[in-house]
Amino acid sequence: MTHSPEAPGPLEGVTVIDVTRVLAGPYASMVLSDLGATVIKVEAPGSGDDSRGFGPVVGGTSTYFASVNRGKKSIALDLKAPDDRAILMDLLATADVLLENFRPGVMEKLGLSWEELAPKFPQLIYGSVSGFGQTGPYRDRAAYDIVVQAMGGMMSVTGPEDGPPARVGTSIGDVGAGAFLALGVTSALYARSRSGKGRRIDISMLDCQVALLENAVTRYGATGELPRPMGSKHPLIAPFQAFRTADDWLVIAAGNDRLFARFTAAIGRAELAQNPLFLKRTDRQRHHQALEIEIELTLATRSRDEWLSLLQAEGIPCGPIRNVADLMEDPQLAARQMICETRDSAGQRFQVVGNPVKISGYDDRPERGAVPDLDQHRGEILTALYGRPPAP
Amino acid sequence: MTHSPEAPGPLEGVTVIDVTRVLAGPYASMVLSDLGATVIKVEAPGSGDDSRGFGPVVGGTSTYFASVNRGKKSIALDLKAPDDRAILMDLLATADVLLENFRPGVMEKLGLSWEELAPKFPQLIYGSVSGFGQTGPYRDRAAYDIVVQAMGGMMSVTGPEDGPPARVGTSIGDVGAGAFLALGVTSALYARSRSGKGRRIDISMLDCQVALLENAVTRYGATGELPRPMGSKHPLIAPFQAFRTADDWLVIAAGNDRLFARFTAAIGRAELAQNPLFLKRTDRQRHHQALEIEIELTLATRSRDEWLSLLQAEGIPCGPIRNVADLMEDPQLAARQMICETRDSAGQRFQVVGNPVKISGYDDRPERGAVPDLDQHRGEILTALYGRPPAP
Repeated sequence: MTHSPEAPGPLEGVTVIDVTRVLAGPYASMVLSDLGATVIKVEAPGSGDDSRGFGPVVGGTSTYFASVNRGKKSIALDLKAPDDRAILMDLLATADVLLENFRPGVMEKLGLSWEELAPKFPQLIYGSVSGFGQTGPYRDRAAYDIVVQAMGGMMSVTGPEDGPPARVGTSIGDVGAGAFLALGVTSALYARSRSGKGRRIDISMLDCQVALLENAVTRYGATGELPRPMGSKHPLIAPFQAFRTADDWLVIAAGNDRLFARFTAAIGRAELAQNPLFLKRTDRQRHHQALEIEIELTLATRSRDEWLSLLQAEGIPCGPIRNVADLMEDPQLAARQMICETRDSAGQRFQVVGNPVKISGYDDRPERGAVPDLDQHRGEILTALYGRPPAP
Repeated sequence: MTHSPEAPGPLEGVTVIDVTRVLAGPYASMVLSDLGATVIKVEAPGSGDDSRGFGPVVGGTSTYFASVNRGKKSIALDLKAPDDRAILMDLLATADVLLENFRPGVMEKLGLSWEELAPKFPQLIYGSVSGFGQTGPYRDRAAYDIVVQAMGGMMSVTGPEDGPPARVGTSIGDVGAGAFLALGVTSALYARSRSGKGRRIDISMLDCQVALLENAVTRYGATGELPRPMGSKHPLIAPFQAFRTADDWLVIAAGNDRLFARFTAAIGRAELAQNPLFLKRTDRQRHHQALEIEIELTLATRSRDEWLSLLQAEGIPCGPIRNVADLMEDPQLAARQMICETRDSAGQRFQVVGNPVKISGYDDRPERGAVPDLDQHRGEILTALYGRPPAP
């Protein structure tokens, strides 16, 4: 992604050296890249980032890899080989940020710990993301997305009321941690603008799952009532869930007394708002099953789209349950350039998700930076670093 | 939260004027507060933030409100009353950030749009979060968490394979957007450190749901295969899911050939790694149902905890499915101070989630700032602003 000087991204001029692989780390550096940073992706010589092999592969390019690595520059460096390590050190001397997502201890063994690098590169912000973090009794354990979704309580509140366990269908264990890592980096960049000093950021995927549980911990701690999976229902609000119509599901969120009165009037069931079972928010929550039956009796009389236009006209928060194909055709997402395009070096095009952080003076481009081949930018990176093309 | 000068948070000295209510906006300002910012919560006189009334209420304090507003300062201001607006303007003159989550158009009607404020306060970073964003055909529609989870594709990939729709059990529509708003603010703070100028940030809850779908959009765009709910399974990797043991569920993530070989050896089923049905990642994904049956046949012979210690000893990524009660007793979360305490003005204690962004030179405190009463800090805020106590 190039940006004209008239519209610099907030992180324009920031250089990120990214030795991360697969998802949590690459997601963080993608977010930073979308905000204007230059990301130099350091990959293992040979096959590079593991995710280059993850299917589905189209025209030789992994869709998984393309989705989070578009717009980055790639250089292959062997972190154990002296010559390549010297290049890494020279890169770090000119960089703002180093990101890594090895198991805790690996960077230490490579002689690339924060303690080792900080005295040499006092400006450097050093960001780590791992399954359980750099400290604590679980620090050496391996984790992948589903392990932290399970151990972090996320699966204990997701899925049907009496079904087998369900995972959040996106890798929220990885991308949640990646987003918090990007947040840590930008806050450290701001702090460095005042102190001149870098910081070390230590993100645990498990911590981030707990941080995303919002009020569940406080609620349980205060009441002893255990949050459980509730299908599409909200633990505290009703109606706030999916309902069946004559032909398909829709969701309705009429969470306060005013919206509930308007909603019941809109569907011709104004008497429900007078029913003592459903009078106040707490009443509706207590009697949500009876309320669901009453509402579905009425919604069953018309199609989803009929109800949606009727409810939208009345300003009731509602919507269809849309799949990924629907997103591709949505006018709102198109207007906000949330479905963008990238291409690989062979010209194969891929659709990718855009940047959700819209910020003034920095227009989104519908075309995102290309998917890098392994080591594609070696010449460009070394020339920028050493002022001459690299030896052949 | 006070911090000693020896350990300043990265956002120490940053003042946030926060006119947001309920969840997405308050979550963003909580995250900023956890990084060291001072948050002045501006609430409507009378009943304040709607969420002060959300149950469960303990000792007069809403657990919902407490969970995301601990550590903020509260002042009650009527944004339509001239005297109170004058105070707001004086606050903005000394502030770094304004956050709002009204429906698009409301701040304009209040005469508090970015266009109006930016010339007066060129340093001000103006952050908005709304259901669909400030632009596009849906901008005027109301949205709550479940509406954007449904419309953003999140529900289309979450839940059982053939069940009714399921929501992500935490309000990921709100907290996801809140996290991206905090990221926008910190990146704008960094940009301001170089330009001196504030920026306007426009976060859409819908955009953020799509941004969290990771490779689903790219995968569908390239293959036409629609991502669907898969229970606890991963769309691309197997085994990577929940399994039944003799007494309870556990999750196992043996996503590559090396881990799969180690896993099958560990459970005494080394022959599975030689079976042509399960040889490569793509084979295992294609035959995941057969693989699940084989694995559960063996796992059924021992208890969850027996399997977990055996698998952990072999370095296989695995874990129990833990509920919120389990989190409260977890030694890793304790070591990382992810379960903290706060109190309200009456001294009632609440457990709250800690800060997942661990950063050097900034130690977490186990005790978080108190839950503010409505208008509790009026005197303190006005004294700081005007250099004298306010008129009675």
